[in-house]
This record gives sequence, structure tokens and C-alpha cells, in this order.
Amino acid sequence: MEYKFSDRTNNLKPSAIREIFKYAADPTVVSLSAGNPSPDAFPVKELEEISAELFRTNPIGLLQYSVTEGYTPLREYLKGYLSDKYCIGTDNDDILITTGAQQIMDFATKSLVNEGEIIVTEAPSFIGSLNSFRAYNAKLVGVPVQSDGMDTEILEKVLSEHDNIKFIYTIPNFQNPSGVTMSMEKRERVYELACKYDVLILEDNPYGDLRYSGEFLPSIKSLDKEGRVIYAGSFSKVIAPGIRVAYVLAPKPIIQKMTVCKQGSDVHTNIWSQMLCYEYLTKYDFEAHLDKLRTIYRKKAQFCMDLLDKYCAPEITYDKIDGGLFIWCKLPESVDMLDYVKKAIENKVCVVPGNAFLTDESETTNGFRINFSTPTDEQLEKGIKALGKLIKSLV
Amino acid sequence: MEYKFSDRTNNLKPSAIREIFKYAADPTVVSLSAGNPSPDAFPVKELEEISAELFRTNPIGLLQYSVTEGYTPLREYLKGYLSDKYCIGTDNDDILITTGAQQIMDFATKSLVNEGEIIVTEAPSFIGSLNSFRAYNAKLVGVPVQSDGMDTEILEKVLSEHDNIKFIYTIPNFQNPSGVTMSMEKRERVYELACKYDVLILEDNPYGDLRYSGEFLPSIKSLDKEGRVIYAGSFSKVIAPGIRVAYVLAPKPIIQKMTVCKQGSDVHTNIWSQMLCYEYLTKYDFEAHLDKLRTIYRKKAQFCMDLLDKYCAPEITYDKIDGGLFIWCKLPESVDMLDYVKKAIENKVCVVPGNAFLTDESETTNGFRINFSTPTDEQLEKGIKALGKLIKSLV
Repeated sequence: MEYKFSDRTNNLKPSAIREIFKYAADPTVVSLSAGNPSPDAFPVKELEEISAELFRTNPIGLLQYSVTEGYTPLREYLKGYLSDKYCIGTDNDDILITTGAQQIMDFATKSLVNEGEIIVTEAPSFIGSLNSFRAYNAKLVGVPVQSDGMDTEILEKVLSEHDNIKFIYTIPNFQNPSGVTMSMEKRERVYELACKYDVLILEDNPYGDLRYSGEFLPSIKSLDKEGRVIYAGSFSKVIAPGIRVAYVLAPKPIIQKMTVCKQGSDVHTNIWSQMLCYEYLTKYDFEAHLDKLRTIYRKKAQFCMDLLDKYCAPEITYDKIDGGLFIWCKLPESVDMLDYVKKAIENKVCVVPGNAFLTDESETTNGFRINFSTPTDEQLEKGIKALGKLIKSLV
Repeated sequence: MEYKFSDRTNNLKPSAIREIFKYAADPTVVSLSAGNPSPDAFPVKELEEISAELFRTNPIGLLQYSVTEGYTPLREYLKGYLSDKYCIGTDNDDILITTGAQQIMDFATKSLVNEGEIIVTEAPSFIGSLNSFRAYNAKLVGVPVQSDGMDTEILEKVLSEHDNIKFIYTIPNFQNPSGVTMSMEKRERVYELACKYDVLILEDNPYGDLRYSGEFLPSIKSLDKEGRVIYAGSFSKVIAPGIRVAYVLAPKPIIQKMTVCKQGSDVHTNIWSQMLCYEYLTKYDFEAHLDKLRTIYRKKAQFCMDLLDKYCAPEITYDKIDGGLFIWCKLPESVDMLDYVKKAIENKVCVVPGNAFLTDESETTNGFRINFSTPTDEQLEKGIKALGKLIKSLV
């Protein structure tokens, strides 16, 4: 039988990263292509204790149906936490708990964007989000990322040229894949432009708490006076990704519509996970845990950058990062990036080709993404050494 | 700020059942409106043991990112289980693990149905699924349910009159909300008609294992030679709903497309839940557990029907059920159903008005749905007594 798929999903391909994972699964290949938190970053003992305690004290609450909006104590706690710590959220905002932050991208697009309407994204941007947008046949327009974030001149040009833009998608902190952090001036400018051209902003901040150098910068949501910013936060990088808990804070009408979307999708997020997060946030020292994560990643990031300097300079360049899990490496113009990535796999090291992160994958880029949180130090050294040896053989 | 939502979600309303839950949350109101498994149906001790053991033996596996398709041992086990026990699935089929079965309705619609294309459903049908379909602007056409299932003559009429039907949605066993089980003749006929008119079937079977009287009937999927049937199964009613684990078995190209949808939505189902199900299915006596559930629900269903006979006959009628969690009650023609349901709430008992389950909620019906799995026996008696007193005061 021939299956006829919907127009919106007809041209959807499995994510390019995913295809690369096939190589990464080969145990002889060093994978620098993942985005997994370091295994030693999980608070295993604490979560084990909490889980056991929940089974003892509230087994039915843990196993029964729950409400779509999310576990009420967790929602209430997050409202206070985001407001007190980051000046995020007003009385006009509400919170929905989601099954990972990717689901926020899904529901934001589903509830706001008609087929053919435009989402403006950074270029490069997170492939998972791009694919969520594509799955509703949204049109993607990329705005180049500079060393201090989105090029706001090009952003204004794009906003002025189209009248069917629904929102601007940005990852202001330690962007995936570029590693870039948006400057305060640009955060203000992006918000100003959103107001001027009457579009929304979807601010995705999975890595914000993983700043290990430089100064904290307020989120765009904290500037939001008009109710234009949808703020996506996640526990995937700061507690654990397998439990699939994230949250979206946005103006109430948007949260209500996203809640209806969730009712028609997974009904509610696993309640055990939500309780786990709530108990961990409120009964353990979450700030100390974040400090520990920053220490782990600061060390790993520095180790990775030192290896790049040692083995890959001057042919491969990169911008120093202040947080997050990724480094964006640039090849000399004379080297074909896709060819290099293929040869790298033959040399037993796997990275993500930069075009995977573009709104149009057929565009060219000389960048590729490496991740340093998943591999061991030994794997990092072996992988980056191979990358260096390869580039030196090519130029 | 005025928010402009997408056309597909612009007219979506929160589910009517959900609105009713507001009343049901009042502790002085007896709620017969839920669909929750009975709290004594959860294998609490076993799940507690498994969870503790998983934390001891595989904490990182439990907390790290996992694959979109689902936990491989669970998928492999289910393939064998469904094939051996129910003759479901061929080499052309594959399995995707989902976050509850509602997500199957979401992804099936997303991947197959363009806005304006038709999904044929039973009338009445499960409101959650109807809302999943509506969230993609699918057009719903209802086919009346008779005491042996969908009216296949009307089904053929509908199929012959429209050329943009994507699939037939059916719950053949102990249908929600009607309680009706489709006869073998009709299962064969529905499949035959799907082949004749070249449409797919989405077979939703959350209650199949909860048959407590009458004879087992094979699923429509077990008749599927052409690769036309998408089969949705769930652990919500037979292990626990809060863990959100379900599965869809369907032709490989459809599973591949739904997997891409899941990549762009929640990425993967909570891995702890999936491991929990796998360990429970393989290391404990699942068949004995199902027997226990059938014993619990057989007793509760009989108790409920006895109460209906005692307090509500002859004014309120119902069809005897052989399984599942719901009974469909019919009021005399002279009584306005919505008015009756409102008065019932004033009399401290909450049921779901039948029109909530219609493809067009503004249509009239004299039916309402009651659930007997969630309330205690005392609550059931109190609630049904109040329903009886009310109907007798009205006719």
C-alpha cells in the first residue's frame, strides 16, 4: 500500500544529527556529536532517595492521571523562583509544565503559526527546534549570528520586509550550536524590534544556568512589558534529560492555548518526574548542584579548548565560550566542510556538520559543532587529535 | 496585546470533560465523570521494587537522553507479545512507544491528515481523540454506534460520498463512552470497507484487556493484510496512567513518519516509565495482574449496574457492558439531557453529558456517561441514588 502523508510532514526528514548518531553508535568512533549532559552531572543519589520516598508516601498520586497544566506545587514554586531569581514573569503570565522543552516549540508553533507563516530564527540554530517548526510547514528565515548574537540590522530588515512573521526564535545564552551569548544591547534591541513590528519572541534558555565565566545577563523575558515573550526553561541540562521535564512561562492566553494543545497530545507530563523535580528543587541544595555542574563543565570546556589550541590551531578556529555544552569550530575557506566531516568519520571521530543547523540545509557553511560534555577526557583528546591531524593533512 | 492564534487551534476549546472536572473537584460532589483506573488496580509494590532496582543498577540509563522510537527491549518484547497473544503485527509493521495513547492520535493526525480532510469516527466517541483530531483542523464525520458497533451501512454511505477521508477511528472494545463492543462481523466489514474505499483505520484499544464477561474478539489489526491498520495500545488502564506509556504498531512507513513527529515534540517518552513497564511485563506475572483487574472491575461494574436497576429503572436505560470502565445511560425522550446533567450537579453528582462525545457538540443526545472505576462503592451508591431520585422527580 502507498501511504499519503500530510503536506506538513511530507518533506520532513529525520534529523541530520540523528543520522550521524548511527556512526556515533560505533564504539570505535569518538562521538563529539551529542548534546548529552555529562553522566557525573546527574544527582543520582538524591533522585533515588526522592523517588523511594514518593513511593512510600504518595504512590497513588505518583501513578494516577494528573492535570494537564502540570503538578501545581511545581508550577507555583517555579513562578516564585523565576520571579525572585531572574525577574521573570508578571501577573499576566502563567506556567505550563511540558515533556521536555522541545514540546514547547511544538505547541508554540501549533497554537500560533499557520502553514506558510514565518518564524525568524538565528542562523545557525538548534536543529530540534527547526524541525519542530518545519513539522507545521512554517517558513523559516535565518538571521546570521555574530559574536554578540543575532545580527539585529538584518533582523530589522527581515521584520520590515515580511508581514506574516509570527515569532522570533532565539537562544540568547550559549546558543546551540554557535556557543554565542547575546549581548545586553542586542537583547534590548531584539525586544524593541519585536514591539515595533508586532511579533512575539520565543526565548529558549536551556543552558542559562550553565554559565561558567563572564557576567550574568538578564533574559529578554525579564524586559517584557507588553506580553510578547514566551520563555522556555528546562531541567534537562540541570537535573536530567531522561525525565523529560521543562516549563514554559508566557502570557496567560498563550499558555491556555498551549494547554489545550497538550490536552490533545500527551495529556500531562509524567507525574513522577514532576514530583521528582519539585522535591529536588525544594528539599535539596539546587544552587550548590548548579555550582557543581558549572565546575564540571568549566573544566571540560577549558580542556576542550586547550586541545583545540594544541592540535587544531591555526587551521581550525573557534570563539571562546562562557557556558553551555557546545563549541562551534570553523574550517579554513579552502576546505569543504561536508567532505571534512565525512573524512573525520573515516578517521573515527564524529562531529555535526554546520549546515544541519541552517534553515536551508543546502546552504554552505565552513562550521561544525563539537560537544564536550558527553565524551570522557580521553575520548576528547583522541577525537580532537584526530580532527587536528585530518585538517593538517588537508591544507 | 491581542494574540492571533493559528487557524487550526483558533476554535479549540478546553475539553468539556475538563470543565466538568471543576465541579468534580468539589469534595461534596460525587464524581462519576472521570476515567481513572481504580487506585487499588495499581501494582504499587511491584513498581516500587522495580524503580528502586533500576536506580541501583542503571541510574544513568534512567536519567540520560534516550532514543525516540522507545526503549528497545520494550519494543522488542511488545512485538513478540502482540504477535503471540493477539496475532497482531507482521514484518511490515513496527512499534513506536508514545507518551500515552493520546499522543498516537496526535501524531497519526499530524502525519496523515491535511486541514479539511476527513476522519470518520464513531458517534459518540472518545472526546480526547476528537480534540486531537480537531487540533489539526480535520473534519470529523460521525457514524452512529449500534449495540454491536458502528453502523456499517452508514459507514459505507459516508465512505462512498467523500473522497478525502484519511482514516476511520474506532475503539472496538468497550468503547468510550458507549461501552459497546464491535461484533466480529462488523470488524470484518469495517476492514473490508477500508480496503474497498482505500482508507486507513486507527484502532484504539485501551480497554481490550479489561474484558470481564463474554468472549474475546480478535482486533481489526489482526485481520490486516494490506497494511491499513494503525493499532494503538496503552498501559494506562492496565499498569498506571500517570507514567504515560503507550505504543503504536503500524506499517513501517507510518511509524517512521510518526517517529519524526515525536522527534519534533517530546523527543522520547520518559525512560524510567518505559523501563518500569518492561521490567513489570517480563519479571512479574502480568497475566495474573490482568486477572486481578478484571475481578475488581467485574465486581464494580456489576455493582454499578445493580444500582442503576435499583434506583434509576425504568426511566434510565443502559446497555449491559462486558468490559471497560464506562456505562452509557439513556434518559427518556421527554427529558432534556443537558438540563438533567446540570440539575444532577446541583444534586451533588457529576456525569458527562453525551453531546461532549459527538463530532458536533451542538447536536442533541439523550445519553450521558458514567464511570464506575474511580468512585468508591459508597460514592457510587450515593451518586446513582441521586441520579435516580432526580429522574423520578422529572418524569
